[in-house]
Amino acid sequence: MHVKLTIAYDGTGLVGWQRQSTGASIQALLEDALAPLDDEPVVVHGAGRTDAGVHAWGQVASITLHRTMTMNAVVRAVNVRLPLSVRVLSAEEVGPDFHARFSASSKSYRYRIWNGPVLDPFERDFVWHIAGPSLDVRAMADAATHLIGRHDFAAFQSAGGDVETSVRTIHASMVTAAQAPLGGPLITYDVTGDGFLRHMVRAMVGSLVEVGRGYRSAEWLADVLRSKDRHRAGRTAPAAGLFLMSVGYQRPDL
Amino acid sequence: MHVKLTIAYDGTGLVGWQRQSTGASIQALLEDALAPLDDEPVVVHGAGRTDAGVHAWGQVASITLHRTMTMNAVVRAVNVRLPLSVRVLSAEEVGPDFHARFSASSKSYRYRIWNGPVLDPFERDFVWHIAGPSLDVRAMADAATHLIGRHDFAAFQSAGGDVETSVRTIHASMVTAAQAPLGGPLITYDVTGDGFLRHMVRAMVGSLVEVGRGYRSAEWLADVLRSKDRHRAGRTAPAAGLFLMSVGYQRPDL
Repeated sequence: MHVKLTIAYDGTGLVGWQRQSTGASIQALLEDALAPLDDEPVVVHGAGRTDAGVHAWGQVASITLHRTMTMNAVVRAVNVRLPLSVRVLSAEEVGPDFHARFSASSKSYRYRIWNGPVLDPFERDFVWHIAGPSLDVRAMADAATHLIGRHDFAAFQSAGGDVETSVRTIHASMVTAAQAPLGGPLITYDVTGDGFLRHMVRAMVGSLVEVGRGYRSAEWLADVLRSKDRHRAGRTAPAAGLFLMSVGYQRPDL
Repeated sequence: MHVKLTIAYDGTGLVGWQRQSTGASIQALLEDALAPLDDEPVVVHGAGRTDAGVHAWGQVASITLHRTMTMNAVVRAVNVRLPLSVRVLSAEEVGPDFHARFSASSKSYRYRIWNGPVLDPFERDFVWHIAGPSLDVRAMADAATHLIGRHDFAAFQSAGGDVETSVRTIHASMVTAAQAPLGGPLITYDVTGDGFLRHMVRAMVGSLVEVGRGYRSAEWLADVLRSKDRHRAGRTAPAAGLFLMSVGYQRPDL
């Protein structure tokens, strides 16, 4: 039985998606929680290998089970063994060719910035706190549009990735002044693409903030992109502000 | 110098507002953070003594300082010494008769219920999780209106309070199906009154949930209120769902 799991997690205090010896990973928590469901160890393949401290609202994983059970039973059995910081939201039976990572056609991330002097205590693990002065959201929004399209994103890639090409297609790239649940100076960056390089969203956000601070122009971001030089882009934004929101799949892949 | 502080905190893992030997309280954290600002120990008076695990979005406290400084300097100096789970949102100079608790004319609380099978990991410390079946929000909203007005709320008071009378006036009492920040089956109860007894909001919520489950009618809640008998009301709802949203003051009290 091939199953697609949709997963949400608060990444605070976790070492990231991938199993590591240094602490609790989402992959290891899921594999351990799934183990009692099957006679063989269950291997969990994730769509995106989120870093330590990065969150997910709609991570997707694929598993294979050698027993038959209802999808509701899978969700309940896994959640009862997971910490409350990690939840399987739904399970769906899929075809044998489905692979959470290789079948994915798009991913959407959201990055959240708290741009005020006092950080909301409820947001402390879920934003990048930029105390002041106020960022120019309009300039950031303009700059963000320069990232849309098919480009070589080498300028926004950290060392350590294992990909063959740094060419990716960005479909949507938007900066908006949003309202926090209880009000507040929240700025969000929403980006959708066919794939992302290591630390790519966080390097893009670090560069957009340079524009928002008035240190750089929107055109500078286009120049950085063309340069393919990581040293020209802004710093890598902190992990806490980043959420993997959803993963898209073409129906024929299922 | 007399100062009114507005404070937000994530009460998870704290022992509540009042200083206690058993762990970190909000009062103790504030008094310790304020100590370096004055030559004498600073005593912090809070408007509402929230219990362990209860949160605040707009708690108010009053302090007296024997030094002169700007309100911005107070906010910055205190926040730099506080954990990120507790933040002073603003400081305002007030008259010598102002007392956060005794000058308060109204308080507003919000209680949040997550009424779905899978609890959002980002909400785990901020809701009462009632997995299912779905609560009847319409019936709860009807029942909630029976609590409005000047009544003896003895039926919703836990033992251990130190008040002379259990008569209070409730101005607003509303149950609504709300949208969580990222969607989801959230139900909120908003209540405003001139004061609240020990565990009163949580006992009211426990009773409203009895109605929402269909075990009791809206009229039953009016009967419980009239009975003044704590044993007839519902259970005390968990602390995690409760937020002190704001405290109101009549201008002449300042």
